[in-house]
Amino acid sequence: MPPVKVTPDDPVHDDAALSQSIDPPRPDTELPALMARMGRAAREAAGVLARADGTARDASLHAASRLLRARVDRILAANARDLAAADARGISGAFRDRLQLDAARVEAMAAAVDAVVALPDPIGTVMAEWTRPNGLRLQRVRVPLGVIGIVYESRPNVTADAAALCLKSGNAVILRGGSESFHSSREIHACVADALATGGLPSTAVQMVPTTDRDAVGKLLGGLSGCVDVVVPRGGRRLIERVQRDARVPVIGHLEGLCHVYVHVAADADMAREIVLNAKMRRPGICGAAETLLIDEAAAPALLPDIATALRAAGCELRGDATACALVPEMVAATEEDWRTEYLDAILAVRVVPGIDAAIEHIRDYGSGHTEAIVTDDASAARRFLDELDSAILLHNASTQFADGGEFGMGAEIGIATGRVHARGPVGVEQLTSWKYLVHGTGQVRP
Amino acid sequence: MPPVKVTPDDPVHDDAALSQSIDPPRPDTELPALMARMGRAAREAAGVLARADGTARDASLHAASRLLRARVDRILAANARDLAAADARGISGAFRDRLQLDAARVEAMAAAVDAVVALPDPIGTVMAEWTRPNGLRLQRVRVPLGVIGIVYESRPNVTADAAALCLKSGNAVILRGGSESFHSSREIHACVADALATGGLPSTAVQMVPTTDRDAVGKLLGGLSGCVDVVVPRGGRRLIERVQRDARVPVIGHLEGLCHVYVHVAADADMAREIVLNAKMRRPGICGAAETLLIDEAAAPALLPDIATALRAAGCELRGDATACALVPEMVAATEEDWRTEYLDAILAVRVVPGIDAAIEHIRDYGSGHTEAIVTDDASAARRFLDELDSAILLHNASTQFADGGEFGMGAEIGIATGRVHARGPVGVEQLTSWKYLVHGTGQVRP
Repeated sequence: MPPVKVTPDDPVHDDAALSQSIDPPRPDTELPALMARMGRAAREAAGVLARADGTARDASLHAASRLLRARVDRILAANARDLAAADARGISGAFRDRLQLDAARVEAMAAAVDAVVALPDPIGTVMAEWTRPNGLRLQRVRVPLGVIGIVYESRPNVTADAAALCLKSGNAVILRGGSESFHSSREIHACVADALATGGLPSTAVQMVPTTDRDAVGKLLGGLSGCVDVVVPRGGRRLIERVQRDARVPVIGHLEGLCHVYVHVAADADMAREIVLNAKMRRPGICGAAETLLIDEAAAPALLPDIATALRAAGCELRGDATACALVPEMVAATEEDWRTEYLDAILAVRVVPGIDAAIEHIRDYGSGHTEAIVTDDASAARRFLDELDSAILLHNASTQFADGGEFGMGAEIGIATGRVHARGPVGVEQLTSWKYLVHGTGQVRP
Repeated sequence: MPPVKVTPDDPVHDDAALSQSIDPPRPDTELPALMARMGRAAREAAGVLARADGTARDASLHAASRLLRARVDRILAANARDLAAADARGISGAFRDRLQLDAARVEAMAAAVDAVVALPDPIGTVMAEWTRPNGLRLQRVRVPLGVIGIVYESRPNVTADAAALCLKSGNAVILRGGSESFHSSREIHACVADALATGGLPSTAVQMVPTTDRDAVGKLLGGLSGCVDVVVPRGGRRLIERVQRDARVPVIGHLEGLCHVYVHVAADADMAREIVLNAKMRRPGICGAAETLLIDEAAAPALLPDIATALRAAGCELRGDATACALVPEMVAATEEDWRTEYLDAILAVRVVPGIDAAIEHIRDYGSGHTEAIVTDDASAARRFLDELDSAILLHNASTQFADGGEFGMGAEIGIATGRVHARGPVGVEQLTSWKYLVHGTGQVRP
């Protein structure tokens, strides 16, 4: 297997070639034909991938991480174009931060691809095996899902993460990133696509929609005439609503993470403060960040002022109900809307509740089924919280920021699924697979 | 827990009460409101079920089987109404046979419910458990899917089977059966609904759409404003097409079973004959019945005449390609359409192929991804067939009629899923569940 060519000035990828091949203008009428071609190419690539050896997929991914490192200057130049366009539109700080790359972030992206390569190959593993009284031996064996469509928003690193996870799990993938990160994603995608040949895989195994035309999302959600097996949307409420309306193929859904921390009356004061602080402020912009703090009224006078001081010192704005505001005068009054808001920012809603029943009811009413934590030294209260709530992830005495495939020991992930079908919780390589049954007989017929 | 009342003449179920409560005429405009009510009631019942003990679900199901036995006369009278209507429309033999009940079939239905009760309770079982280096202990625990919508066609026994499987797995269910079996299904459903109180469960845990209005299917596929978590369609191509077009919720899909038996050149002659005969003729009307026989040209002269004689003696019509017809003069010529047809009847298409590559290619081109079998004594040929094909079930030296949850040792099933997401192959109680993650900490925060 020849080593991949990692010269950053590979002539195939000079800007003229790129703008000719994947940067429109092209007439709108061409989009359906373009998407149909991509679908057929992906289906064909999926057939090759399903029969390819895991070492071929790993070799391609290793080559991709090498190319990401070798082409860092080109990636940053493309990112500068995206940032300039964002600045021209007066884009906000948190958004700009998600979009911006630097050498360290590109290195982190390459390292994440290497980490995916290091995961065990899921394909072909025997998930279960048993023998029937009639002598039939059954095996349940992992196979790829087939063709995965990924629809995401502004973070350019999703391009590398999603491509690596899909490829590791033997799937072909069609990526459709946000228009804000179009040029960055295009360069990152080129690294992966150019690396596929190293493992003898077709470059069409990882395709990126080469236009920011929004109709491309609709085409993907429609399944491209049976060429897309599942769509994974990553984005905000508007994208999710569009997916729910337009998807004609199975969806591994990622709703918002309206996560709660509930401080029970039997909570340890220091633990409560540290968990709330971490759950909100470690990284306020991730889906596992806490958005609402619920605290028992019997514990609030002793605990809430201390928790509020720690949060405010870390730069967090607090919006409380009347009881909370009375205990912490610096708090502003929360409205009904605050209980429903995923801030993804340094803001926390605070509600004082009479007890665990009210806490569970609040989470059922307002939660998004993503991740909730209880802080308590009372084992039976913890048991009730974990039993009676039905979010994808429920924690006892730990921060909601642990809602992460890596922290779960599952390796990298493409997100936290909040749907109830196929994948729930962190979506890693195993969750991007299906299975088939193999039945080994010696001539058995059914009576 | 009081024993269920099993008097067959329970006044709640006299015909007048039935026709008032669940037999329309009612204006079409009422359907949306009716379906919305059913959706909300199901969602509420799902909440009760998720927290109910497995013994409560089992007690209800045992009561249901007792009621099915006690009300056999009433069920057969309702079935007679359905049969009379079918006869008046001049319905065909195979269809009438699927619709018709007798005392033995009602007993089999009750026994099937008892068999589901006897399965282990999936809910609350710990599917996996592990500890992270930071001391977090993680558990993956089975939970119900929630509310399942079942859309099916004429077999009345699906009413009891589906209700039992959904209830055993802790789900609320909304059943929408075919109009041909409406009266039979209504009586069967009443047995289950009346039995729920025995386990202290709400009668709305198992609802049946009380009208044959086709728009009810559309409403279910639309998800009833988030009240339906997943739809399981059971039926022919027209229903599947409608589901693919209209579903706005996840679907556990059951496509047709266009199953193949491939007789390889290294097949044992007696085994090949017995497997083909069983795969086609044991029960030609089930989805795991073989529809096409592929046979190597090197084996056909020696084996095909004998196989054909056995099939014809059992009453099977044969449609072959030119080579097959030359070997078996009684065969009629197959057309392209025959390779694409799920007969569900005593008809078999026969094609002579040059070898395993052509057999695999034929199955990829024409198969529905359900179940395929190879008959061979050559282990490497078997390996290739099982590796390179990607149907839900692949068998070596065994009949395709083993494509069945019971034969797999999974207990009863609601069908064989041919989709690639969530459930693939037999769909039993475990496949009707989801899971959540429980994380047990001692104050961990994420670095």
